[in-house]
Amino acid sequence: MSLYPSLEDMKVDQMAKAQQEISNRIISAVGGMPSSSGGSVAAPPYPLHPEHSGGHAYPGLSEYMGLEFTDEILRLNMPEYLPGQQLQPLHSNQVVAATPGFNQQLVAPISSTAMNVISHSTPTNAIRQVVLCKDANGKVGMRVKDINKGVFVCLVMKDSPAALAGLRFGDQLLELNGTVLAGLSTDKVHALVKKCSANNISLAVRDRPFERAITLHKDSHGHIGFQFKDGEVIAIVKDSSAARNGMVIQHQMLEVNGQNVVGLKDKAITEIVRDSGNILTVTIMPSFVYKHMMKHMASSLTKIMDHALPML
Amino acid sequence: MSLYPSLEDMKVDQMAKAQQEISNRIISAVGGMPSSSGGSVAAPPYPLHPEHSGGHAYPGLSEYMGLEFTDEILRLNMPEYLPGQQLQPLHSNQVVAATPGFNQQLVAPISSTAMNVISHSTPTNAIRQVVLCKDANGKVGMRVKDINKGVFVCLVMKDSPAALAGLRFGDQLLELNGTVLAGLSTDKVHALVKKCSANNISLAVRDRPFERAITLHKDSHGHIGFQFKDGEVIAIVKDSSAARNGMVIQHQMLEVNGQNVVGLKDKAITEIVRDSGNILTVTIMPSFVYKHMMKHMASSLTKIMDHALPML
Repeated sequence: MSLYPSLEDMKVDQMAKAQQEISNRIISAVGGMPSSSGGSVAAPPYPLHPEHSGGHAYPGLSEYMGLEFTDEILRLNMPEYLPGQQLQPLHSNQVVAATPGFNQQLVAPISSTAMNVISHSTPTNAIRQVVLCKDANGKVGMRVKDINKGVFVCLVMKDSPAALAGLRFGDQLLELNGTVLAGLSTDKVHALVKKCSANNISLAVRDRPFERAITLHKDSHGHIGFQFKDGEVIAIVKDSSAARNGMVIQHQMLEVNGQNVVGLKDKAITEIVRDSGNILTVTIMPSFVYKHMMKHMASSLTKIMDHALPML
Repeated sequence: MSLYPSLEDMKVDQMAKAQQEISNRIISAVGGMPSSSGGSVAAPPYPLHPEHSGGHAYPGLSEYMGLEFTDEILRLNMPEYLPGQQLQPLHSNQVVAATPGFNQQLVAPISSTAMNVISHSTPTNAIRQVVLCKDANGKVGMRVKDINKGVFVCLVMKDSPAALAGLRFGDQLLELNGTVLAGLSTDKVHALVKKCSANNISLAVRDRPFERAITLHKDSHGHIGFQFKDGEVIAIVKDSSAARNGMVIQHQMLEVNGQNVVGLKDKAITEIVRDSGNILTVTIMPSFVYKHMMKHMASSLTKIMDHALPML
């Protein structure tokens, strides 16, 4: 019941645990203390005494197969299982995090190499406070849209105070200087912002409630396994990382590794995907919500949207 | 930029921090070490030396007001600010969690009294493995629906293996015994499940991707501030907790405090809300997704859905 950012992480963790389980069982069958080495194996990378952690449900190999694993037999046949030997991790970028208690050892997911990006890309749905000011032209650089009695950010201008404060496409605005915004129209909210003084504009914000993030792994050809048109996911490649990790069609791509791609041409999005690492996170939103938010928005506006790399 | 489960939590945290900031400034103006008490104030609940943490941007009271706060003046006028005095928390169910570093002190949110429920109710969108078996009738007790090339759980039977394994309405099934399910039809997936052996049916599951949770606080009348009909949110009360926390209409209620309410009558849902504590979490899903999942489902089925209280 552990939780993983991608299916690949889950698989690697399961493989590593299975491998380690076998190793431990064999070491346990060999017998007690490491005897071949002099003495300074004070902190072996894996616990050598499974009986300390409650023991196994199954007997060791030696018990039910009648075999005798002496150090000598091991040295001749399976030197890698000798007590004191370091087990090789399955994969070079996979880290075994030793925690107290044998069964709780966690293999850090392979996506952890990109964990900064993942945590930045994943909408938390939590509430935070944002304090804004207006720029020299008296603008905060943000447009909103009312949906289902909520107020949502649909445009953040490049280099604007709103962009610098970290507001993002799809954020839900709950309060403006203490006024609850629920039920207000787009125009009413824009008018309220206009009336604000230049400094200390306080917003309570729910982090991108309609969005979710999917972490994908590139295959040997650099593909993540889905097609998109005008930023909308339209097809998923069989047995690709996208298919395995639950990507769905009729959803709009909003971010790649936390970088806003709304309003970008497909070619530009493809380049961002190509230039990113082997593990990347794509943030998506149902197309019907996206289309509602973008309705009546001039295409000239999307060009001046904030597409800066996220601050990590 | 801290993150809170509800807007009320954010407000309480801000109030508490402001109160503490003032207290610290006064204590700082009083001067160095606590001198009135004998000596055993080894661990004061608040740091008494703001200068250890980088100091204040503003001068202490004594510096710009020319006042002299001796211990005696304090004892006569403001005994609550004497060094060594415990500050009273703002609210009885609010806990101050002391962390290293003065500016990083966090006030635990008031919703923390219900934190078990909140964490259980909030979809993580993460991936987990679930292992199922079939019951005496050869059923796992689950129905699925294909949406946008994904496969989603739309029915979990009461007391079934699926319910016991913790599958929930809206979970996305990614793999069944290693077979990637993306793009398969509802019927095809049902046929695959039927073909499985009775034991060790392994599923990779993404936690309820279309859902999100909103934490609400009851007002003095016990109201949380929205109306629903057939489980769908249809109106939000002005300035209520639902309005403040960003509840939206045209969404279906799926869970209350992690308990499935799909298929329950409105009266039964109202009773669950009434009988829960002052802080509760409502899990919702866009109505159009919900209607798609429930299409063609016999109402007789929803009656035998799992509505058990969540295992915490």
